Amino acid sequence: MKLFGTMCVNNKGHLEIGGCDTVELAREYGTPLYVLDEKHVRKNCQNFYQAFTQKHGADVLYAGKSLLTMAVCRIIDEEGLGLDVVSGGELYTAIKASFPMERVYFHGNNKTVEEIRLALEHKIGRIMVDNLHELEILNRIAGELKTSAKILIRLTPGVEAHTHEYIRTGHIDSKFGLVVENGQAMEGVRKALEMENLELCGFHCHIGSQIFELESYAHAASVMMKFVSDVRDETGFETSELDLGGGLGIYYYDGDQPQAVAEYADIVINTVQQQAEKFELPMPKVMVEPGRSITGPAGITLYRVGAVKDIPNVRKYVAVDGSMGDNPRPALYQAKYEAYAANRMNEDAKEVVSVAGKCCESGDMLNWDLSLPEVKSGDILAVTATGAYTYSMSSNYNRLPRPAMIMVNEGDVDLIIRRETYADLLRNDLVPERLKKKVVNIANAR
Amino acid sequence: MKLFGTMCVNNKGHLEIGGCDTVELAREYGTPLYVLDEKHVRKNCQNFYQAFTQKHGADVLYAGKSLLTMAVCRIIDEEGLGLDVVSGGELYTAIKASFPMERVYFHGNNKTVEEIRLALEHKIGRIMVDNLHELEILNRIAGELKTSAKILIRLTPGVEAHTHEYIRTGHIDSKFGLVVENGQAMEGVRKALEMENLELCGFHCHIGSQIFELESYAHAASVMMKFVSDVRDETGFETSELDLGGGLGIYYYDGDQPQAVAEYADIVINTVQQQAEKFELPMPKVMVEPGRSITGPAGITLYRVGAVKDIPNVRKYVAVDGSMGDNPRPALYQAKYEAYAANRMNEDAKEVVSVAGKCCESGDMLNWDLSLPEVKSGDILAVTATGAYTYSMSSNYNRLPRPAMIMVNEGDVDLIIRRETYADLLRNDLVPERLKKKVVNIANAR
Repeated sequence: MKLFGTMCVNNKGHLEIGGCDTVELAREYGTPLYVLDEKHVRKNCQNFYQAFTQKHGADVLYAGKSLLTMAVCRIIDEEGLGLDVVSGGELYTAIKASFPMERVYFHGNNKTVEEIRLALEHKIGRIMVDNLHELEILNRIAGELKTSAKILIRLTPGVEAHTHEYIRTGHIDSKFGLVVENGQAMEGVRKALEMENLELCGFHCHIGSQIFELESYAHAASVMMKFVSDVRDETGFETSELDLGGGLGIYYYDGDQPQAVAEYADIVINTVQQQAEKFELPMPKVMVEPGRSITGPAGITLYRVGAVKDIPNVRKYVAVDGSMGDNPRPALYQAKYEAYAANRMNEDAKEVVSVAGKCCESGDMLNWDLSLPEVKSGDILAVTATGAYTYSMSSNYNRLPRPAMIMVNEGDVDLIIRRETYADLLRNDLVPERLKKKVVNIANAR
Repeated sequence: MKLFGTMCVNNKGHLEIGGCDTVELAREYGTPLYVLDEKHVRKNCQNFYQAFTQKHGADVLYAGKSLLTMAVCRIIDEEGLGLDVVSGGELYTAIKASFPMERVYFHGNNKTVEEIRLALEHKIGRIMVDNLHELEILNRIAGELKTSAKILIRLTPGVEAHTHEYIRTGHIDSKFGLVVENGQAMEGVRKALEMENLELCGFHCHIGSQIFELESYAHAASVMMKFVSDVRDETGFETSELDLGGGLGIYYYDGDQPQAVAEYADIVINTVQQQAEKFELPMPKVMVEPGRSITGPAGITLYRVGAVKDIPNVRKYVAVDGSMGDNPRPALYQAKYEAYAANRMNEDAKEVVSVAGKCCESGDMLNWDLSLPEVKSGDILAVTATGAYTYSMSSNYNRLPRPAMIMVNEGDVDLIIRRETYADLLRNDLVPERLKKKVVNIANAR
C-alpha cells in the first residue's frame, strides 16, 4: 500500500487524508470528488524551496498547467515559489488570485497578441519567447505599450529524457523553441539583442515529463551552458538567468522511482557551476519548474462504485461514477494509477478488477487489473496521485458535470472548486428564436 | 479537395460554408470557431430518415454524445429523429430544448440513481439497461415512483467491427452489456421478465465506431435475431424492438470510405427480415443510432495561424490558436484530419506543414504533413469533418476558454454556443477566507 502525505488508515478501516475520513467526505461533498492534501502540497513546495532556493539561491516556478485554481495560487505564493503560466486564462487566474506578477513567467509556443498584451499590461515577470515570430510581435506590442519586456528564449537543446536513458540527438523535431544545433537559436539571440523593446535575460529549456534519470538534467544543463558560452563568445551577451524546466517524475504505479528533490537540485546546480567555471562564465540564476511533483502526489479522486459486472473467466468490471472526463490520462497516455477501496482499507485483496468510467466509450477505463477486497456497489474507490493533470485536463464529455475539489487539512475542509451543475453545462448554449419550439399555452389560448 | 455539404470556394478564393465566407466568420466571431452547416446536418438527418424510416419503418435515434446543444436538439426533433442520451446532463439538455421525451433513449454502463430518477420522472421513451445491477435499481426506483420503465437490454453479441473485417469471437471482454455467449444475457431477460416495474421491449447492441464494412452490421443483426429466437423458445417472450446501434464511418482523411446510408439501411433491414422468416419471428421495430454520420461531416473548425517555424530538413510547424482542448481526437486516437488555408483556396499546394496546437504539450498536434499553399501568420486554417466529438469532448486544458459555435445557413449566422470568457473559467473557483491575500489599502490606512 502506497499512501502519500497525510494519508493513513483510520480506526474505522477507512482511508483518511488531511485528518478527514474519505468515506465521510464522499458522503458530504458527493462523488466524483477531487481531494487535495494541503499539508502535502505545502511540504512539496518546501522541499523544492529548501533544496533549490535556500541551499543554492535558485528559483522554483510552479508549473500552473498541472493544476491551477485561485486557492492553489495562494498557497504557491505563500510558500515563496514563482508561477509558470501558459495562457491568458492561467494568467487571469493568477491576477485574480493576487499572485505577485513579478514572479509570473509566461510560456507557450503560440501566444496570441491579446495574451501578450495582457501579460505586459500586468507587468509580468518574464516572457519565455518560443520562436522568431513571437520575438517580432512581442517587440512590437511592448513598443506600443511603451514598455520593455524581460525575456528568456526557449531553446531546443536536442536532449530528450527517458526514464533510464537520455538521447542526445534527433530530438530537434519539436513544436517548441529554437534549435541550438542548426543555428536558429543563435539567430534568435542576435535578433533579440537588436530589438529595442526587449531585454534578454537568459534561456529556457524543457526536456520532458515523468523523468526519473537525473543525469538527463545534468546533460541538458551542460548543453545549455555551452550555448551560453557560445553566445558570450559570439555576441558578448552575458546570460544572467537559466531556466532548466520541469518534468521530475512522481510515483503513480509500481515501477515508478521518483528521485529525491535535494539530489535533483544538487546535480543541476553543480553541473551549471562546473560548466560556468569551465567556460569562465558568471554563475547564472537557475530556475526549475516543477508542477506534477508539487500537486500530483497530494491529490486523490474519490468515486462511488455503481455497477459491478463479472464476466467469468474474462474480467470483473467495476464501474464508478467518474470517467475520462475527470481524468483523461489513462485514455490519453495509457497512464496507470493505483486505487483503494477507501471504506475497507484493512481487508485483504481478494480479487482482481478493472475500473470502468461511466462514459459511453470502450476506451473509458480508469484502472486495469487492480487487486482489491471484494468490491461492492456503494463502495468508495480512491485513486491516488491524481492532484496534477486531472482537473486541469477535465472535460464535459457525455455532458458529465465536472467534480468538485476540496482541500483538506487537519480535519478541516475547504471547497475550492464548486461542483458543476447541469445548468452550468447550458450557460453558453443558445437556441435561435426561429428554432424554438412553439409550446401552445392553453391558458393564454383560451 | 474534399468539401462537404454547402462548402465551396467563393470568388475571393475563400472557403465558403452555409453561404458564409469563412474568413469573414473568423473575423466577426473570432477563432478558434466551430462552424456547423445547418443544411448539411438536416440533409444527413433526411438521408437516414428516408432510408430507414420512410422505406422500412425503422427508427433513427441521433447519438447525442457526438454533439448535443439545444439548437442541435431542435433540429433533430424537427427532422423527426429520436435522441440517444448517455447521462443526466444530456437528458437535461434535451429537456431544456423541449425534445419530446417519448423519443428519448437512455444509454450508459453506469447510470446513477439520480439519473434514473430524472429519466423516469420525465417519462423518457426507453432505458437501455446495461447490466444486472441496473435492472435491480431501475425496478426499485420505478416502483418508488409508481411507474413502469420501458427497457431494452444491452447485449454483447461477440461481434466487433473493423474497417475491412469483422471478428466473431473474443470480444466479450467489454464494460458494456450482457454477454450472449455465456448465458448472462438470457439470465438478464429472465430477471427482467420477472420484475414488476419493468416492461421489456427488446434488445440493443453496438459493435463499434467508424465502421466501413456493412457486413459487420449484417453479422451483428444475425447474432441478435438468433438471440431473439432463443429468448422466444426459452421464455416465450416476443421481442418487439431491436436497436442495432451506430458507428457508421465518415470521411475524415484519405482512405476513409463511407458507405451509402441507403445501402446500410437495406442490408440491416433485409438481414433482420431474413432472420425473422428463418426463425418464424414477427419482424421487430428496428432502431439505428447515427451520431458522427449526422453532425461530423457538417462541421468545420476555423483557426488563425500564429507562429510559423521552419526547422530546415526536419519539419515546418504552423501553430494555430486552438489545441487538443477544442479537438482532443488527434491526441486521443491519433485521428487524422484534412485542413485547408481558408483564405487562399485557389492557390496551389507549395509545402508540407504540420499544425501544432497552442497547448504546452508536445502531443498537442492537430495535423501532420498537410500539403498547403505557403502558410503565413494571420492565415485562416479550416479543419474539416469536426462536427462530432470535438465540442462534446472539449476541455479547458491550459485554461484555454472553449470556442464559440455558430450555425450557418444560406448566408445567415446563428450563435449557438457563446465563446467562454476568462471569467467563466473561474465561475466555480473559490478561495478560502484564510488564504485570501491581505491587500493593504493605502488610502484607508492613512
